Amino acid sequence: MHGLMQDQPLLISSLIEHAATFHPNQEIVTKTVEGPIHRTNYRELRDRSKQVANMLKTLGVDFQDRVGTLAWNTYRHYELYYGVSGSGGVLHTVNPRLFPEQLTYIINHAEDKVLFFDITFADLVKQLAPELKTVKAFIAMTDRANMPDIDLPNLYCYEELMDAASGDYEWPVFDERTASSLCYTSGTTGNPKGVLYAHRSTVLHSLMMVAPDAFDLGSRTSLLLIVPMFHANAWGVPYSAPMVGAKMVLPGQHLDGASVYNLMKDEGVTFSMAVPTVWLMLFQYLDSTPGASLEDLNLNAVGVGGSAPPIAMIDRFRKSGIDMVQGWGMTETSPLGVVNKLLPKHDSLSDEDKVKLRTKAGRGIWGVEVKIVDDEGNRQPWDGVSSGHFCVKGPWIASGYFRQEGGDKLDAEGFFPTGDIATIDADGYVQLVDRSKDVIKSGGEWISSIELENAAASHPDVAEAAVIGIPHPKWQERPLLIVVLKDHSNATKDDLMAFLESQVAKWWLPEDIVFVDQLPHTATGKLLKTKLRDEFGGHTPGSNSGVQ
Amino acid sequence: MHGLMQDQPLLISSLIEHAATFHPNQEIVTKTVEGPIHRTNYRELRDRSKQVANMLKTLGVDFQDRVGTLAWNTYRHYELYYGVSGSGGVLHTVNPRLFPEQLTYIINHAEDKVLFFDITFADLVKQLAPELKTVKAFIAMTDRANMPDIDLPNLYCYEELMDAASGDYEWPVFDERTASSLCYTSGTTGNPKGVLYAHRSTVLHSLMMVAPDAFDLGSRTSLLLIVPMFHANAWGVPYSAPMVGAKMVLPGQHLDGASVYNLMKDEGVTFSMAVPTVWLMLFQYLDSTPGASLEDLNLNAVGVGGSAPPIAMIDRFRKSGIDMVQGWGMTETSPLGVVNKLLPKHDSLSDEDKVKLRTKAGRGIWGVEVKIVDDEGNRQPWDGVSSGHFCVKGPWIASGYFRQEGGDKLDAEGFFPTGDIATIDADGYVQLVDRSKDVIKSGGEWISSIELENAAASHPDVAEAAVIGIPHPKWQERPLLIVVLKDHSNATKDDLMAFLESQVAKWWLPEDIVFVDQLPHTATGKLLKTKLRDEFGGHTPGSNSGVQ
Repeated sequence: MHGLMQDQPLLISSLIEHAATFHPNQEIVTKTVEGPIHRTNYRELRDRSKQVANMLKTLGVDFQDRVGTLAWNTYRHYELYYGVSGSGGVLHTVNPRLFPEQLTYIINHAEDKVLFFDITFADLVKQLAPELKTVKAFIAMTDRANMPDIDLPNLYCYEELMDAASGDYEWPVFDERTASSLCYTSGTTGNPKGVLYAHRSTVLHSLMMVAPDAFDLGSRTSLLLIVPMFHANAWGVPYSAPMVGAKMVLPGQHLDGASVYNLMKDEGVTFSMAVPTVWLMLFQYLDSTPGASLEDLNLNAVGVGGSAPPIAMIDRFRKSGIDMVQGWGMTETSPLGVVNKLLPKHDSLSDEDKVKLRTKAGRGIWGVEVKIVDDEGNRQPWDGVSSGHFCVKGPWIASGYFRQEGGDKLDAEGFFPTGDIATIDADGYVQLVDRSKDVIKSGGEWISSIELENAAASHPDVAEAAVIGIPHPKWQERPLLIVVLKDHSNATKDDLMAFLESQVAKWWLPEDIVFVDQLPHTATGKLLKTKLRDEFGGHTPGSNSGVQ
Repeated sequence: MHGLMQDQPLLISSLIEHAATFHPNQEIVTKTVEGPIHRTNYRELRDRSKQVANMLKTLGVDFQDRVGTLAWNTYRHYELYYGVSGSGGVLHTVNPRLFPEQLTYIINHAEDKVLFFDITFADLVKQLAPELKTVKAFIAMTDRANMPDIDLPNLYCYEELMDAASGDYEWPVFDERTASSLCYTSGTTGNPKGVLYAHRSTVLHSLMMVAPDAFDLGSRTSLLLIVPMFHANAWGVPYSAPMVGAKMVLPGQHLDGASVYNLMKDEGVTFSMAVPTVWLMLFQYLDSTPGASLEDLNLNAVGVGGSAPPIAMIDRFRKSGIDMVQGWGMTETSPLGVVNKLLPKHDSLSDEDKVKLRTKAGRGIWGVEVKIVDDEGNRQPWDGVSSGHFCVKGPWIASGYFRQEGGDKLDAEGFFPTGDIATIDADGYVQLVDRSKDVIKSGGEWISSIELENAAASHPDVAEAAVIGIPHPKWQERPLLIVVLKDHSNATKDDLMAFLESQVAKWWLPEDIVFVDQLPHTATGKLLKTKLRDEFGGHTPGSNSGVQ
């Protein structure tokens, strides 16, 4: 027997319609790619999103066709979020920071029918265009006066197409499980894989995102969206903000400390989210600019994700009365997985203990079930010590990848394996300790490569450190430490080993240490351990003591 | 094309499982019907809810069978919320304040298979039992020591059944549109009609309920649930609280000022929701009790609904730093329809203007579309002046009533007519001005019976006033004022008419005034205008100048 409630599908168009109806004059402020500050509001954004929907028809985009974007955080990108998904297209936000060959692969794999791009990417698009087999039109997201001077067939001017497009449009109503957007993850191995979101998953994720114990968003929030709109849907914020009528401040391509600070100050920003690097750049600006101060901002809280923030960062914000809220997620989790908010019982902790607790990834929110399991899939205890493969389950967690790349991803209980190793404590706080493929399995116990790297990197002579597993006849695997020393350092293997003995358990000590001039990285700056394993996976202890 | 997200149905069991996992020790405090304070937590509540599920099997309750309750706000009632709905039953919360014949009708119409009741209702249940055709078991919600001494076949002791029930139970997974609970509305005409909620509608409603711009609930909230669990699912709070791990304080049957105040003080209550009458009782207690003060409470905000709060009430809370948040809803809207939170732009208003704005019913939240229409269904402007039939649409709004009573309720656009007349202003604030069936249609313009009654009641000699429409050859309908004067008053028809001339527009003046000794009311205290229309609907002006 069904309940007798209205059968209303959860559609992304409802978010912008709500904002246009109940928060019509709430501002959306953009530092444009062209330069000036641009101001619009939710009513105009809704109206222009409808023009986008009509423009797409003119361009021959059909229901569920993929529409690519190579773009920064601007009102035009925002219009595409609603115009494309609202009309039943699939918004494919492409990360322009990837290598050209990855971009070509991704756009061809997605079969993008058209590609919208910011003028800063004109040369890149010109370079890629000959390889893009499905793209029928390239649209530069600017007006005629700022059109890039590139020789490209099927090149259109966004504002000219908008001028020609009617704003008369009714959002279609369809199954809420319909695909709405697509983001590719660039792993360290293999081809990028596409995560295909649905209208339902996006709306449910937005609802939990605004909750006080998540990111606490409302009509009184002025939100600077630093995290890029091409990165996991900008953590879902472009959907949550209109749901509650929050003011949106979009920084374009300018994420340096000065730009971020000035936008925060000028637009009364109360909340912002970014990776730790951006906050470090803000601190550098504050330290080097007389008169600039966190105290002069309206900032109540900042979100941080992507990697764990250092204690000093949390502490600096705290001292200015700003709450730093860590969230953990990945493209496959929409991305909200766990959020680090303290419980009432933590009020009595010392500031030091509070900050320490805040470095953990976070606790479960409703809608995300979590577990840690051993290699055989057995659940591990939530004691803050036992580690296991971290797995998540819920209505906004991926079940697999676009075109079934990588096959079925869920385990027998329907959980998605994140590829991380984590501990969970009795209160449900998750702490990531390593990547599943990087953890070293030594005699049935697991050694975190990351913790060992951090220990080594804390030596004053070490510039960078990497740890991989090497085969061992008795322990199956043992850690190998690969180190880049600082210039002019004379530290020896024995020096480092003696230092590590004071930092980690004896059985965690590396089997050997190799010195190198540099370590390999991915396009997004992560250690490329696959390459290290290719080179050093067969290392025999003592066979190479490196450059020293 | 479907998105590739996990297919997780939205089920009520997920709410209590989340709380038991991430907020296991968060308290649920009950002032029991038997007397003492009882303390439990979400983990125990989940465990006992599973015992309830097994108990229901023993009692022969099958999937989607209705399970009746006649009960106050206690942990046992709370266990039934999850044990019944979580296991696939339909929780039918019956309002014990209704007339016995209404109770009999409702329970028979719902075909309740079993009936759980608090011992305070033992005599009532004994009286009803012979008429209840479908109820196979009556379960007194107490332990053996407190069992009522009534002669009733198939009478069981709740705690004895619980002792016999295993806690070993897996929540079933089923279609999220499955019916979860049932509440009857007692209109002023016809038989009560059942609103049948679904798991999906309940979970979506809970998500919006916790949002900062709705009731702002989180793990730091200590919530005194005054609104009865038999009244529109206690405004949905029993579902929202575990979703975010809020502390729950359940007052049993004690809603007097002293009980409410002491629970608030003892349990550090930060938020509570109730009808205006309860807040008046609290104020009376504060005024008559030396040492009792709002300032001694942790209260941040209170919710109010059911009827519009007087300005003085909002103001008194405000002066103690407590935000009074009005919400409007009805059983058919789960019940959250609109919520009155001020916008940032209202910060510059005077306190007086702010409080005035707060007397409005509220603004739309995501998930509820609103409109006002004339008799022909044409949308009326949002100018704060034009009035129309108030209609709502959304995934937690009813589409009709149980067993199709009253037929299809939705209009061509899928909106549910609330039966209210309202205005909506440019910011989307809804103000209710009358009931659709009570508004007087005079020459194409509408006169609010409620506003005219309020104007008359503001005369110092008037004890109570009612306004109904009477037929008029030229204006179709004109208002008739029916008045109960205070004892020993000598006010005349001319006195009242002269007073009203200073209060309302000339064309709003009643066609005539009738004096009576008393006015008829429903069981819940509302004016019974159907009876007044029966008696006075054919009234000829001048034919009766009443008791004077």
